[in-house]
Amino acid sequence: MRSITNITACLFLGTVLTACQDAGSNAGEAMTSDTANSKAAQSKMSGFDVTLANAQARVEARLGDPFTIPVPKDPGGGYTHETHKANGFLLYDVGQLYELTGDKKYAEFAAQAMLDYAKVYPAWGLHPAQKEQSPGRMFWQNLNESMFLLNVAQCYDAIKDTLTPEQKETIEIDLLRNMADFLSVGAPETFNKVHNHGTWATAAVGLTGYAIGDDEYVQQALLGLDGSGEAGFLKQMDVLFSPDGFYNEGPYYHRFALKPFVIFAQAVQKNNPDLKIFEKRDGILKKAIYGLIHQNYGGLFFPINDAIKEKGIRTDELLNGVAIAYELTGDTGLLSIAAEQDTFVLTPESRKLAADLAAGKATPFDYKTMRFGDGPQGDQGALDVLRASDDPKGLAVVVKNTSQGLGHGHFDKMGLLVYNAGHEILRDYGAARFLNIEAKFGGHYLAENNKYAKQTVSHNALVVDETSHFNGDVNVGNANWPKIGNFVNEDGLKITSAEITTAYDDVRFDRSVAMIDDAAFSEPIVIDLVEAHSENVHSYDLPFHYNGHLIETNFDLQAYPLSRAPLGKKNGYQYLWKVAEANPVDGLSQVTWLLDKKFYSVTSVVPSEAKIVFTQIGANDPNFNLKPEPGFMLRARTSDGVSFVSVIEPHGDYNPTLEYTIGSHSAVKSVRHFEDGGDEYILIETKAGERVGLGLAGDGGADTVHTIDVDGTDVTWTGPYKLFHSETHKAARN
Amino acid sequence: MRSITNITACLFLGTVLTACQDAGSNAGEAMTSDTANSKAAQSKMSGFDVTLANAQARVEARLGDPFTIPVPKDPGGGYTHETHKANGFLLYDVGQLYELTGDKKYAEFAAQAMLDYAKVYPAWGLHPAQKEQSPGRMFWQNLNESMFLLNVAQCYDAIKDTLTPEQKETIEIDLLRNMADFLSVGAPETFNKVHNHGTWATAAVGLTGYAIGDDEYVQQALLGLDGSGEAGFLKQMDVLFSPDGFYNEGPYYHRFALKPFVIFAQAVQKNNPDLKIFEKRDGILKKAIYGLIHQNYGGLFFPINDAIKEKGIRTDELLNGVAIAYELTGDTGLLSIAAEQDTFVLTPESRKLAADLAAGKATPFDYKTMRFGDGPQGDQGALDVLRASDDPKGLAVVVKNTSQGLGHGHFDKMGLLVYNAGHEILRDYGAARFLNIEAKFGGHYLAENNKYAKQTVSHNALVVDETSHFNGDVNVGNANWPKIGNFVNEDGLKITSAEITTAYDDVRFDRSVAMIDDAAFSEPIVIDLVEAHSENVHSYDLPFHYNGHLIETNFDLQAYPLSRAPLGKKNGYQYLWKVAEANPVDGLSQVTWLLDKKFYSVTSVVPSEAKIVFTQIGANDPNFNLKPEPGFMLRARTSDGVSFVSVIEPHGDYNPTLEYTIGSHSAVKSVRHFEDGGDEYILIETKAGERVGLGLAGDGGADTVHTIDVDGTDVTWTGPYKLFHSETHKAARN
Repeated sequence: MRSITNITACLFLGTVLTACQDAGSNAGEAMTSDTANSKAAQSKMSGFDVTLANAQARVEARLGDPFTIPVPKDPGGGYTHETHKANGFLLYDVGQLYELTGDKKYAEFAAQAMLDYAKVYPAWGLHPAQKEQSPGRMFWQNLNESMFLLNVAQCYDAIKDTLTPEQKETIEIDLLRNMADFLSVGAPETFNKVHNHGTWATAAVGLTGYAIGDDEYVQQALLGLDGSGEAGFLKQMDVLFSPDGFYNEGPYYHRFALKPFVIFAQAVQKNNPDLKIFEKRDGILKKAIYGLIHQNYGGLFFPINDAIKEKGIRTDELLNGVAIAYELTGDTGLLSIAAEQDTFVLTPESRKLAADLAAGKATPFDYKTMRFGDGPQGDQGALDVLRASDDPKGLAVVVKNTSQGLGHGHFDKMGLLVYNAGHEILRDYGAARFLNIEAKFGGHYLAENNKYAKQTVSHNALVVDETSHFNGDVNVGNANWPKIGNFVNEDGLKITSAEITTAYDDVRFDRSVAMIDDAAFSEPIVIDLVEAHSENVHSYDLPFHYNGHLIETNFDLQAYPLSRAPLGKKNGYQYLWKVAEANPVDGLSQVTWLLDKKFYSVTSVVPSEAKIVFTQIGANDPNFNLKPEPGFMLRARTSDGVSFVSVIEPHGDYNPTLEYTIGSHSAVKSVRHFEDGGDEYILIETKAGERVGLGLAGDGGADTVHTIDVDGTDVTWTGPYKLFHSETHKAARN
Repeated sequence: MRSITNITACLFLGTVLTACQDAGSNAGEAMTSDTANSKAAQSKMSGFDVTLANAQARVEARLGDPFTIPVPKDPGGGYTHETHKANGFLLYDVGQLYELTGDKKYAEFAAQAMLDYAKVYPAWGLHPAQKEQSPGRMFWQNLNESMFLLNVAQCYDAIKDTLTPEQKETIEIDLLRNMADFLSVGAPETFNKVHNHGTWATAAVGLTGYAIGDDEYVQQALLGLDGSGEAGFLKQMDVLFSPDGFYNEGPYYHRFALKPFVIFAQAVQKNNPDLKIFEKRDGILKKAIYGLIHQNYGGLFFPINDAIKEKGIRTDELLNGVAIAYELTGDTGLLSIAAEQDTFVLTPESRKLAADLAAGKATPFDYKTMRFGDGPQGDQGALDVLRASDDPKGLAVVVKNTSQGLGHGHFDKMGLLVYNAGHEILRDYGAARFLNIEAKFGGHYLAENNKYAKQTVSHNALVVDETSHFNGDVNVGNANWPKIGNFVNEDGLKITSAEITTAYDDVRFDRSVAMIDDAAFSEPIVIDLVEAHSENVHSYDLPFHYNGHLIETNFDLQAYPLSRAPLGKKNGYQYLWKVAEANPVDGLSQVTWLLDKKFYSVTSVVPSEAKIVFTQIGANDPNFNLKPEPGFMLRARTSDGVSFVSVIEPHGDYNPTLEYTIGSHSAVKSVRHFEDGGDEYILIETKAGERVGLGLAGDGGADTVHTIDVDGTDVTWTGPYKLFHSETHKAARN
């Protein structure tokens, strides 16, 4: 409880900011959440009631204190910055509290605070610590000023009916219009930019327009400064999300971009219902909200590109997003998401969400296998998500067939993530960053982010010649993306595939990933086919960054028990200790690990001269900035391309409570890969003698017949793919 | 769900045992638990109802199948072994189901099964795979035979009233007496042994006596074969637990030993209430149950000595134990433990427990600061447990001032464990073992258990000359234990201390650990004083095996970014990579790490020539048998002993959801250690300028006055210890 007291002291009393100089944004919510849990446990209040009670208690503690408006001086993280930021959130809170409770004291506080701001704001020039691009006046960058106005405009809208005409005039002219003008006509380069900073600016100015009843601001916000529609909110809606609601930089930045979209769109819906803003572009904003939800596993966002891995659906932006989407759709599956969020915000929509949740109306959220096209037209690659079922803790696979994702993008074309039983199984490192932790490079992205986390080898993605995709050049990356192939979503069979020819000069490669359900296996499994094509000599590494403790391999490990050295010198390899090496047995590599009471095996058919290299992150890391995670990679050097076919298999049960273990060994005896032209056939044989096959056609249509010679027997199928089930499976189906 | 099907197939149909050859004991419970959760979620049944329904469904699936009684052949883990084991559990289940439901079909099945056993059992000689010591007939060792009889005697007792006199005679003579005789007069070396195998045997034979109404068995069980009381159950009750209910080998083996004690004692209570078995030795069996509960954190047992770290209060033995203790005491705090166990057993006591839990009668379990004396008389050291509050997730400290703990004991005198916020903060490695996982040395203790996990350096315990306590000799260890000192349990101040003179030839050392609560710190902190006394040159290492990611140090780290080598060659040091070294700054070492959104700092005053060595487990581990956990150690080489004083401090909050971080830096500016004769004074100064002091007297009584010169000022206190609070704290109290 003391730490909560500290937060209060820090951000609300505003007196001991030096004691928490690394504090970030609206930390006050922490109290809401923590106190909420204990309070809810005690009194069985609904989640929203707890949020409301906490907000009232939090604000109550501020009402008697002097409201501090310091002269702008400090950059982000400093005293004046944090104080104005906290003031903005406080004003939002009191506005919402007035609206929700009708208690005049909130309105009076808000009025006085805004009048106080109106007194000083007009005289403030550019911030003394202004950033070079897009400087602010209250803050060092105008992005923060937009965020402040977004809060304050909503506050004004909520309490304006309590003001005298004189008060209204003062606040509107000296604070709201002054700030809105500064953010619009005063900063056209940001306001007209089709970029999330532009969305914050247009949303703030548009909300101001609605609040003060000036449609010119609204029109500027919607259509850009010149009203042409070439810029502004509607244009941003057209461009910043793909038609499937995918955000180019990935979910971590998606959630940040989402908030001004949904907040302003909601105001548009209320004030200009004729615009049908939520129906525009085939309901793009709903898709953006749903898309973000679908991009989570175990409550955390898929950590593709620069991402803080702990970030997930409890994020503030998605609390608003889910409440608004529920208001729009009535989809009771969203109530399950709200239950997992377990936190609410101070809006009527959130109140309704909490009430319906408490009333037991929740149904399971419809998690499903989806392909999210990337790019404004959806034709720049795709994020492919395969789920074995709608169970949020079931087997799930993500294949990153997207485009680069701009400056925050990682060089991991066709990178693979696998989840099961609530955990990451094959994982992405995410960003190398300790957010807001001063001792770790001030909480910024670490040098290791560019040098390790963005490099291809830190992902489950094919590396050629120990060099990252596009040679690590983000401009080349932005100009190229995979050509996406099959996407199949059938009962018991999901497939994604894609190919890229531009990641390396003379190597094109493709990856097909299938999730299949066959009675020969105790659970659904994944088949992963990676093929590279080249006419020159290259080395190929296919890393598997596994999560767990190594249990078993089908080969003898040559470890380095007395010394360790880095695996390479550049492109991220310098951060990997080489901890062991091995040779496959009869062209087969099988690696089994244990994670939280389940076993996972990767059984791969590899070229007979291949090596398996085991790694641990942490070489060249004198400041211990990186997490010491394990991995192994399939490695081959060839003159004519390579193929790696792997079966990724969850199995067994390690139960230390009841002291039994079953199924600790992989069920896979062999994996074989047959090719004929562009056609492929993958044959899995289990230790129990079952055979499961997957045919993938190189080309042709739905009626094209494909035949491959498998051990002297022709295997034939029609169309782009076919799963050949085991006999046991077929018998069970009959 | 498929994996559950597998378990059923494996242990109940008994047909595909080869598919689960590494299965252990009563795996059937797994289904109970898993299915229970989903069923309970669906239907809001009480926990016991779910247990009962699952047992009925599970047994139902067996009733129509042939009941297999194979001729004994296989050792533990093999087909005949597992089948008989499963049969025993099945008979227990059907007996209980008959008792709970009155449905005759259960009794009929049980009768036939026991008659079938009675037909074949008398002809079985010693098991073909007999163990050298204590061989069985149905199983390779008679321990398993005792476990079988424990189950079957309870079954017979439950259903005997449904039998004809002929059936009774057959079962009693050819199965129950035959087996009981084999386990008692037939195996006096086990039966009369004061050891947990003896408890299983006496409990099984005693239960048989009650079931068939033969008091001679009961008396043998209670008093030993000769009725003298020098052996038998009552003697075991006198010796195997300390007067405080501590089990010498620690909680992991405690829970295994507990089951026959509570099961048989319960039968004694019902059949011979005059014996007041649960009141004997000041209620030792209740103390043993409570003691085991107190020795958990976050649901898992303190992993001292050989321990599978995942084992905790959900263990079958403690499901029975809690139900029985609740029946005896009515302590509603036990309902909170039952809630955390979330699993029930097929007994009337467990049914009552579930009903009262469902009725909302639970109160918090009274976790508290406790000293558990070790040894039959409680005078062979102690396990000291300090808890900041009754919050099961609050700050807790365990100091292992116990005796050796026999063959499963580790060489870690005065070893320290620290827990906070539900996690291990400073941790013990536990056993080096993957229980029942065949690929890891058959699931047995690994070679690394003796060579690393038992060695002193793998613990948070002082190591002299890189040599383990007692030079790693378990016989010397068993003959020696620490002399325990102060134990204080006051509001805001808990202290434990102990000293040992026998761990090393010419070094005696002591450790005092205090948990204090002072307003100068946001949370309770720990002060750790380790002192060694010697007149010769020695090297001293004090390891801190921390859990988390290194964030900050007050010194420059000299890391080895390009190569790694083992820290030493023997006594466990060969398993540690030396990953960095550093010098303290002005005699102060400060290390901060991050774990699950909280920061932890250890600030130590050390000799100015000391080094700080950072390690990672995993050298000399070519099979990857060890977990790659981090640690650091304070290291000094001196000619006149050493003292290390550390402040262990949880602090701050890293919140990636709301994107703020507060309190990431330690609040400690300096720690100083003043000595005068045997008196000690530890002075902590915070960065905010607060001073907190702890005086510890070397000797004297409650009225002895102690004075130490601290920077020219005399600090005086009366009695063995005194906490000098900060000014802020004192002001708040006034």
